[in-house]
This record gives sequence, structure tokens and C-alpha cells, in this order.
Amino acid sequence: MCFAEYFPIFSRLPADEQSLLLSHVFLQKIPKGTQLHRDEKDCLGLLLVLSGQLRVFMTSQNGREITIYRLYDRDICLFSASCIMKNIQFDLNISAERDTDVWIIPINIYKTLMQKSTIIANYTNEIMASRFTDVMWLIEQILWKSFDQRLANFLIEESNLQSKNQLHITHEQIAFHLGTAREVVTRMLKYFQDEGLVRLARGLIEITDIKKLNELNK
Amino acid sequence: MCFAEYFPIFSRLPADEQSLLLSHVFLQKIPKGTQLHRDEKDCLGLLLVLSGQLRVFMTSQNGREITIYRLYDRDICLFSASCIMKNIQFDLNISAERDTDVWIIPINIYKTLMQKSTIIANYTNEIMASRFTDVMWLIEQILWKSFDQRLANFLIEESNLQSKNQLHITHEQIAFHLGTAREVVTRMLKYFQDEGLVRLARGLIEITDIKKLNELNK
Repeated sequence: MCFAEYFPIFSRLPADEQSLLLSHVFLQKIPKGTQLHRDEKDCLGLLLVLSGQLRVFMTSQNGREITIYRLYDRDICLFSASCIMKNIQFDLNISAERDTDVWIIPINIYKTLMQKSTIIANYTNEIMASRFTDVMWLIEQILWKSFDQRLANFLIEESNLQSKNQLHITHEQIAFHLGTAREVVTRMLKYFQDEGLVRLARGLIEITDIKKLNELNK
Repeated sequence: MCFAEYFPIFSRLPADEQSLLLSHVFLQKIPKGTQLHRDEKDCLGLLLVLSGQLRVFMTSQNGREITIYRLYDRDICLFSASCIMKNIQFDLNISAERDTDVWIIPINIYKTLMQKSTIIANYTNEIMASRFTDVMWLIEQILWKSFDQRLANFLIEESNLQSKNQLHITHEQIAFHLGTAREVVTRMLKYFQDEGLVRLARGLIEITDIKKLNELNK
């Protein structure tokens, strides 16, 4: 639970910056379902995930959604501090998909440190570069993978995350993850069922042939 | 032509960093059609565009392309220096669409300065945040705009860039910009022609009704 352990560059910082951090960071429990960040107006600060799961997603004008990436234990959430960077001119939403514990570095403290410390400024660069890599992967998926591959990939990932074959998720929720319409998801899931890959019931998708699903994903 | 004028943070740097830069930057002429950067192995350095036009694009395994963004006068190209940042794990290609003049800050000089100067490290952050914004815009376009809107937008932009209504561009080149297949472009252009928006000839697309094209783009 020690902050120093969760902030990878902590030991490289000089003593005064370490104590500035230690005297201002705080732990927060975020219950599952909480909407953490809606736009740049709520600028929480830098979040360090102790445990849990955050979903970072984008919303279209007419209410569609797409998951940009997810954050797990020991991941760092930069976009909850996006107001620091004036060139970030897009809105991401962040919500807790599970009960999540985070360390929060308040925004003014992080801003002060970024302007003072090359270690922190370059570390921020590295986090942004990681997220950039996630986003470029997403573009490749959207453009050059067919929808059956993306859906298969999503079901496999979800099954791994939850460590089970029965997924309690609606077609609409899947559509929100993949940036498409509910009907498109329903049609493809029915095709998957006909092919024996899944079994569908109300609010439930059971993976019945993970091997075939994996083959689709190649 | 003065470097100091093209590097926005120059005046904020201390004298020793200014002279390090001035003694190492150099001007380079890049002829139209040059492939500047293919993957992280060619790590040129930071480019400051004096004049011209660079295209930053991604390539799929089976040879498709999509334009991620373009750089014009006074823009700064960060991904030609991507080897500095270990967390950038994707390959972008950069090519010159026109004869282009650039200032180049060699990679080792930029790296040294990033580790030493919070001004340069934070400036790098700002450039990356700008490109991130471009990429998020692209995702929105791909996901939530229909292909006729994207094609109309591309033709309008291209016509503005070249300041003329007659565009010398092949359907394949357009497909490379928009990340799709040539046939898809040809089909939509024929539809545009039937609707009186464009006139098609060999290697040429003439915009005949810019107003209608603009309406499509809304």
C-alpha cells in the first residue's frame, strides 16, 4: 500500500520532492460504477491504481461509446490530469468497472513537480507515449480487422479478465466497448452461436468453443 | 530562416543550451517523394518544418495505408525522433508530399537536452499531446463518420491545400489516405459524379459542386 512502491520514479527524486509528494498524496476508494472524469473540468490529478479496473472511453455526439483502453493494478492514469496540458483538446471519460483503490497526486502538486523536475516531466512523456501506443493499436484494429475478429478478441479478453466462460454483459455494453451499434453486435453474436462458438441467453454470453474463437482472432 | 524563430521555446532556454542547439542544428532540403522515416531504426531527430508538406502515415501488414496527420510550415515532427521514447511501440512512416525544407535537431542533442531541461521535456509533452489530439480526432472520424463524409472532407481539404478544383490524384492514393480499399473509393466517387458533385477523368477529379460537398461533410 506504500505510495513510493506504486510510483516507479519515486526513488530517483530528490528528498524535497519526495516529501512534497508524500505530504499531499492520498488514497481514495472508488466504488464500481463511479464516473470519475467526464471532461477537462473535473481535473482530479494523476491516479495510481492500487487495485481494481478503470475504463477510459470516448463518447460520440449521438451517444455512442468506444473503449480506448483499460487500466489495472499499478497502471497510471494520466488523462485525469489532462487539464495540465493545454494541447490535449479531446474529452475522455473514465469510469470504475470494479471497486478500485487509487493513490491521487493532486493536480497542483503534479503541475509544480512537472515544471521543476526533468525526471517527472520525462516520466509524463513516457506515460503519454504508452497511451499513444494503445491508441495506435486501436486504430489498426478498427481499420484493418474485421468486426468478427474484434468481437472474438473482446470476448476472449473479457473471459480472461473475469476468469470465467459465462459473461454477464449486454449486447449494448459490448457495442459501447467496440464503438458500434447494438444491432451489429447482436447480429454477429447470433452468427457466433450458429457456428457453435457461444451460447446466448438473456444478459449472458457463454463461450462454448474458445479454441475456434481464438482462431478467428488471428 | 533563423532557427531561433522556428523553435518556439528557444528564447526561454539558458545560454549554454541555446549555443548547444545552434552549433548542431542543420538545414536540410527534402525532395518531394522522399521517404524520411520508415521505422524506429531511422531516427533522424526532431524536425522543424520551414516550408513544404510532410505526410505521417501508418501501413498495414497487407500494404494498406492511412494518413494519420500532415505537417506544414512551422510544424514540428516528433516521431522522427521516436527512438528517444522507449514506450512508443508503433511504427509510423513519414514522407515528403512536396519539396520540404526542415531544420533538424540531431537525436543525441535532443536527448541530452530532454534529460537536462524541464522546458524541453515539457515542450516535448506538448507536441505529443497535440499529435494525440489529432489521432483522437481521426478515431472519431473513422468510427462515427460515414465514408461519404470522410471522402467529401478529404476532397475539400485537398482542394484547399492545392488551391484548385482539379485534383491530380489517383483513387489508390485516396484509399491510402483514408485507410480503405481502392474499390471503395472508386464506388463512392462514381456516386459523387452521378450526384453532380465531381467530374472524373483519368488521374483527375474535378470538384464541380463544392457547396453540396460541404453539406455532405456536416
